[in-house]
Order: sequence, then C-alpha cells, then structure tokens
Amino acid sequence: MKFSKKILKRASEINSRMIFNLDVEKGIEILDKIYPYLAACKINRTLTDIIGMNEIKRIIEQYPDLPFIADFKIADIPHTNDVLSKNAGHVGFDAITVQAFVGSDAVMAVQKNLDVILVVAMSHEGAKEFISENTKKFCELALNLNIDAVVAPATRTEEIKTVKEILKSQAIILSPGVGVQGGNFGDAVRNGSDFEMIGRTIYDVKNPKEIANEIYEKLPFKK
Amino acid sequence: MKFSKKILKRASEINSRMIFNLDVEKGIEILDKIYPYLAACKINRTLTDIIGMNEIKRIIEQYPDLPFIADFKIADIPHTNDVLSKNAGHVGFDAITVQAFVGSDAVMAVQKNLDVILVVAMSHEGAKEFISENTKKFCELALNLNIDAVVAPATRTEEIKTVKEILKSQAIILSPGVGVQGGNFGDAVRNGSDFEMIGRTIYDVKNPKEIANEIYEKLPFKK
Repeated sequence: MKFSKKILKRASEINSRMIFNLDVEKGIEILDKIYPYLAACKINRTLTDIIGMNEIKRIIEQYPDLPFIADFKIADIPHTNDVLSKNAGHVGFDAITVQAFVGSDAVMAVQKNLDVILVVAMSHEGAKEFISENTKKFCELALNLNIDAVVAPATRTEEIKTVKEILKSQAIILSPGVGVQGGNFGDAVRNGSDFEMIGRTIYDVKNPKEIANEIYEKLPFKK
Repeated sequence: MKFSKKILKRASEINSRMIFNLDVEKGIEILDKIYPYLAACKINRTLTDIIGMNEIKRIIEQYPDLPFIADFKIADIPHTNDVLSKNAGHVGFDAITVQAFVGSDAVMAVQKNLDVILVVAMSHEGAKEFISENTKKFCELALNLNIDAVVAPATRTEEIKTVKEILKSQAIILSPGVGVQGGNFGDAVRNGSDFEMIGRTIYDVKNPKEIANEIYEKLPFKK
C-alpha cells in the first residue's frame, strides 16, 4: 500500500494526526507507551547511528499497524540514494524523506524502491537562505514525479499554505517544528497540513503518555 | 589537527592525491590492500547502514595515519546536524560532508563538533536543477564560515575552476565522479582540485592493488 494511503488509514482508524519523532534511545520506551495515539513514527539518523539498523528492524516489527518513516533527509547522487532507500526498505520502513534540492534523478532513484516524502521546506532559520526561495519549484517537482507526501514546517504557516495551494489534494503535508521549535499544536493542521511531528516536547516530561494524550486531543483526524 | 592540514600532511608523505570511497562491505578488504596509496578514506552511509557505527569505529582505529571522512552529506536542521556530527566524531571520523543548501546555521552546528567538508557542487545530472546555480553562493558561505575543505565534482571541470577562483587557497577541493561516473583520473586535479575520489573503478576489478597503483601514479601530490 502507498505510504499516503497507509498513514491516512491509520489516522482515520485512531482519529489522530500525530507523528512521533523517534530520534534518541529513550524514545523507544516512550514509543511503547504512546503508540496508540500515533498516526505514524519517524526515525532519524541520530538513532540509527547509535543502535544500528538491525535494532531498528526489530522495533518496526513490533508495531505492524504503525507506518514508519525513515527521516534520513537523503541528499546524495542517484546511485547512492538508490542504495540508501533499498536498505531502508529492507528494515521495514514505509517511506523515506528525500531532499528535493538534489534534483529529479536523485529523487527518482528512490521512488523505484520506497515511497518518497519530499522535503520542500524546512523549519530552521538557515532554510531562508536557499530552501524557502525554491519551495514552489520543489512542489512542482513533487507534482511532476507524482509524489504524494511532502514535508513543510509548522513554524512557517505561510509556507504550508503555499505548498497546499500548489499540491492541492495530490500530496499530504507532514509538518515538523511543533513544540520546542516554536510551532503550536494544531496550527500547522489549521493552515493546510495533514500531520504534525512531535518529539522533544514529549521527551522532556515526567509523564509522556499524559502529554501525548493532551496533544492527541488537539490533533483529531475527524473534525 | 584540522582536517585540511591532516590530509595535506598525509598526501605529502605518501605523494598521493587519491581518496578511497569505502561504500560497500567488500571495500573493507580492498582498503587493507590499497591504504598505502591513499591520502584519505571516505565512508558513506551505504556502509554504515549495513555494518553499524561500532564496526566503523573498529575500521578507523586500524589505520591511525589515514584521515577518515564521514561522507554523510548531512542536510538536516541545526539540532540534528549537531547530534549527527557529534556521533561521527565519537567513532573517530576527522571530517564530515555537509550540504551547503541547508544554510549557515545548520553548517555552523556541525563546526562546533567536527571539521566540515562543504558540498558546494555535485556530479549528477540533477545537480543542474538547483545546486549548480547556487555554487558561487555556497563558496561564499564557505569563505564566511572559514571552511577549509569543499566538494566539487570531477565531472564538471568548469565548476571546479569557479570554486577555485572564489576560494583560492582558503579551502582544499575534493572531487568525486572519477572513473565510472565519467571523469578521467587527473582531470580534476589539473583543473584546480586537490584530491580525487575513487570507488567503483577499484571495486569491479580482479586486482585492486594493481589498479590503485596505476591511479596513484596519475595523481602525485608533488609535481
């Protein structure tokens, strides 16, 4: 099943637009407490570097109903992107984030192996230097390559609107930058995003399940 | 010691401008045969995904005189780039490749932990879409951040010339794309590059040591 369909099915079933950022080791335990609230889980290189891909495979296998995203923001030449996405597919990921700025052929090399979530905008200050000015072109690239999921930051709602205007219903929008990075829960969704990514906000609290439940209630899938 | 000094010292000692791309498992055995010819070794995510970072640490420790590059082309937000580069430093890498496209703050987050090799140009066809038009600006970013090593492809000698003109003696230039990707050994160096990266050319031959020696003779450090 295509990634966008898989995550929308899960979102509808559990009535949630929340994605968990599993990027440090202590998150593994938290995932086990909060997974009933999650539409998907994304795993960063910061975790694969520490525990290795075999352990990642074991985690993914424990949650067969939960879509998993390799948030690797791959940005290499086509041959390398091909190998990296094959490896991510082998451990069980449903989709992988790819930097649009590397160009069409590098993105297409991934599509042969795994569903692409295209990074068309980013949440940090430095994104204004080279990324923001190309966001529209990155969206056109997504249209041309029939990509059905993109990343656009919760911290810049105007960019989410731009992305939504260009992609309309072709692609779902996933938004990082909520919580510690400055975005408020629900803002991205209200501006056209489909899913919000939550990480550091949950890590630094005493009762992650309680906080997950609070955020969950702010991010219903059904209105 | 700064990465640029370390690789130039090694290059001078063994009279070579050759960097080996260790990107698949069978390369580990080849490295052991050809390391006397190498100015440095770069390791891609394609290998860390398969054998894990602990095994990477073990390999790096075996060659204390050889500079190692984490060719991870990292392209994430500052917080994530910070963690990724710390991890790479912990396993013993001397430097890490970073995509200039993500902007100043994301690059500076790495500089606190590890020497940066800035990707200012790339070798594949798709690089013409968004990267090539920004190469000059990426070089100015390198100047502003006192970066002393950049990547520019052997397949586009005109881009190497442009990079050299802007950076002059501030930064060394490392060039991928030699061999299978189309560049001839020595062309990049003749056009202003300091080091050429060799990978698939050596992997697909019967006697890697013989081929390494042939390439070595085409890439002397001293003229």
